[in-house]
Amino acid sequence: MEAGKSPTAGKPIRCRAAVSRKPGEPLEIEEVTVDPPMPHEVRIRVICTSLCHSDVTFWRMKDPPGYFPRIFGHEAVGIVESVGENVGEVTEGDVVVPTFMSDCGECEDCKSKKSNLCSKLPFKLSPWMPRYETSRFKDLKGEVLYHFLFVSSFIEYTVVDVAHVTKIDPAIPPSRACLIGCGVSTGVGAAWRTANVEAGSTVAIFGLGSIGLAVAEGARLCGAARIIGVDMNPEKFEIGKKFGVTDFVYAGNSDNKALSQVINEMTGGGADYCFECVGLASLVHEAYASCRKGWGKTVVLGVDKPGSQLTFSSFDVLHSGKSLVGSLFGGLKAKSDIPILLRRYVDKELQLDEFVTHEVVFEDINKAFELLIEGKCLRCVIWMGK
Amino acid sequence: MEAGKSPTAGKPIRCRAAVSRKPGEPLEIEEVTVDPPMPHEVRIRVICTSLCHSDVTFWRMKDPPGYFPRIFGHEAVGIVESVGENVGEVTEGDVVVPTFMSDCGECEDCKSKKSNLCSKLPFKLSPWMPRYETSRFKDLKGEVLYHFLFVSSFIEYTVVDVAHVTKIDPAIPPSRACLIGCGVSTGVGAAWRTANVEAGSTVAIFGLGSIGLAVAEGARLCGAARIIGVDMNPEKFEIGKKFGVTDFVYAGNSDNKALSQVINEMTGGGADYCFECVGLASLVHEAYASCRKGWGKTVVLGVDKPGSQLTFSSFDVLHSGKSLVGSLFGGLKAKSDIPILLRRYVDKELQLDEFVTHEVVFEDINKAFELLIEGKCLRCVIWMGK
Ligand SMILES: [Zn+2]
Ligand SMILES: [Zn+2]
Ligand SMILES: [Zn+2]
Ligand SMILES: [Zn+2]
Repeated sequence: MEAGKSPTAGKPIRCRAAVSRKPGEPLEIEEVTVDPPMPHEVRIRVICTSLCHSDVTFWRMKDPPGYFPRIFGHEAVGIVESVGENVGEVTEGDVVVPTFMSDCGECEDCKSKKSNLCSKLPFKLSPWMPRYETSRFKDLKGEVLYHFLFVSSFIEYTVVDVAHVTKIDPAIPPSRACLIGCGVSTGVGAAWRTANVEAGSTVAIFGLGSIGLAVAEGARLCGAARIIGVDMNPEKFEIGKKFGVTDFVYAGNSDNKALSQVINEMTGGGADYCFECVGLASLVHEAYASCRKGWGKTVVLGVDKPGSQLTFSSFDVLHSGKSLVGSLFGGLKAKSDIPILLRRYVDKELQLDEFVTHEVVFEDINKAFELLIEGKCLRCVIWMGK
Repeated sequence: MEAGKSPTAGKPIRCRAAVSRKPGEPLEIEEVTVDPPMPHEVRIRVICTSLCHSDVTFWRMKDPPGYFPRIFGHEAVGIVESVGENVGEVTEGDVVVPTFMSDCGECEDCKSKKSNLCSKLPFKLSPWMPRYETSRFKDLKGEVLYHFLFVSSFIEYTVVDVAHVTKIDPAIPPSRACLIGCGVSTGVGAAWRTANVEAGSTVAIFGLGSIGLAVAEGARLCGAARIIGVDMNPEKFEIGKKFGVTDFVYAGNSDNKALSQVINEMTGGGADYCFECVGLASLVHEAYASCRKGWGKTVVLGVDKPGSQLTFSSFDVLHSGKSLVGSLFGGLKAKSDIPILLRRYVDKELQLDEFVTHEVVFEDINKAFELLIEGKCLRCVIWMGK
């Protein structure tokens, strides 16, 4: 045994996982085996993980890209247990945040400041590890368990490609660090990196779920003067205020006034930036129509049903001077931007605490699903315990 | 009579105009009367004017926004004959370029660096003067003649709102200065102001008419390393080379390979900037698909049929990191950017001479229409004589 090497290094680990065996049915805590990391891979002991809406979406999905049995979870923080060959970036004992987006550092995109869409290990809805298209998980009968978003954190030990892992400051509370793996980063990054919100500007956010609230938080950090939150649920305004939302538009009005008309009137011509965080094509159109002519920017963050279309009048596009852009993971480059965001949390600039509304132990993971589905929580942190 | 004031100031002027009486029929040179400028207006003696495709499009248009009888023409240079009340910006004898876009200098858009879409006198397809919704032109029977794009330059004297007039250096040859009023500025500006093409980047231009060639010229000025021209007409490559086009893609191939596939292969993943200059929704989609993931920008310049729609898959928008933006008058602010462009012409950086392929006298204006329709010219300059 090499110095500093874990006694489990190189061997399969038997541990507990919350396995999703059938679409929409409660997860089952089972014993499973986790293979050692292949070259360029890292095996991680998960400290805690939080539940994101994408977990729920794919957990309900009966047909591909829904796959079962599967280990969900993709917002997490953990400690490196062992590394495969060709891994120099992290070592045993490092605290890391895995991400569904790769940052290989080698491809044209990763080397460019302008892109966060790695070309070497591109984002896709795959049930496998990204580099080898195989699984590291089996149940005790030997059946393969599928991965989820290249992370799979509802398990005590997971394996993640090193390109999907960012080393972080171990002093940061894990229940805050795990949030940075998906939803909060997506929202904050959309305002900060994708839109690059200008200080003093006006922002409209369609949908005040966790991502929308994170957009508000990002816009607030960027110095936006006015942050308009739009939601069907009037209760969202109170929570929105905590993240910098200054104005609320109730989206459930029946007086036939389009949301874009309301926002155009409120702002005297439209918001400088509009963010669609729900995933409805119709709402993307309202967002586009709510943007200031001449310079308004509409950022699409929501994931709509596969095959859904966004349609714009070519006259409007030509004559409005508005722009439209999509944002995946908030345009963040994981390995360089996650440490910046966590530093801003430590410096009390970025607010993460308010996102954690619930915490449960691993055995109660199904409770986290219930809370999120009922709309009663922003983020529920699931602690793996020892 | 005040010192320096024209003897015609304040009185109607009788002069010659090329009147378009019926859609698609040859213009008729007639005597007409031109009223004196109202407050905030300027009466201009036209020196020369060039024919743009929009003139032809509206000249053919049987229904509104086609109106007859009308005086077309919107690329011109002239000398101020007299000014109405409240005009301090230009005075008798000044050489000016009128533009279809207003730059009032007072509204939020005109004061912002980010917009060229004046809110006070917004662009619209009106047959009148912009501020009073009336005409300054009558024929000798007293019938009102409609304006076109707030310019109407196929006439010896026209009246233009001062917000639509830019004073220029009188030393610049009029046959070059007139080009800057629409098409060339639209193309050059789209590369320079709307896209802000980065030095060393790759550009793809869909449609190598005057506007597409002007985009190439703008991209060349910005230092683009590679400029790919796409056209149905293989003869366009030779002319394209003069404006910096380095590669040509023939759009008329029947081998079923999408243009976007060809461009993605040529560029190893897409162009940094794509410009649609034809006005076909299907070509906007090809342009979007030809853009580099992660940072590609698609600029829409072409005017499609009213009511035409641009449709994108929301998955593509979300996952591509590409942006889409429309560009009217190339994003240029007339009063500040036209002098810059003309200065660059004088400094032999911006090429204008190559756009002027034909010149005719006013009496031969219908010849200019024939040449443009036959595709035999880029710009035909029409000299008013005297
Ligand atoms: Zn990469
Ligand atoms: Zn997520
Ligand atoms: Zn204005
Ligand atoms: Zn024109």
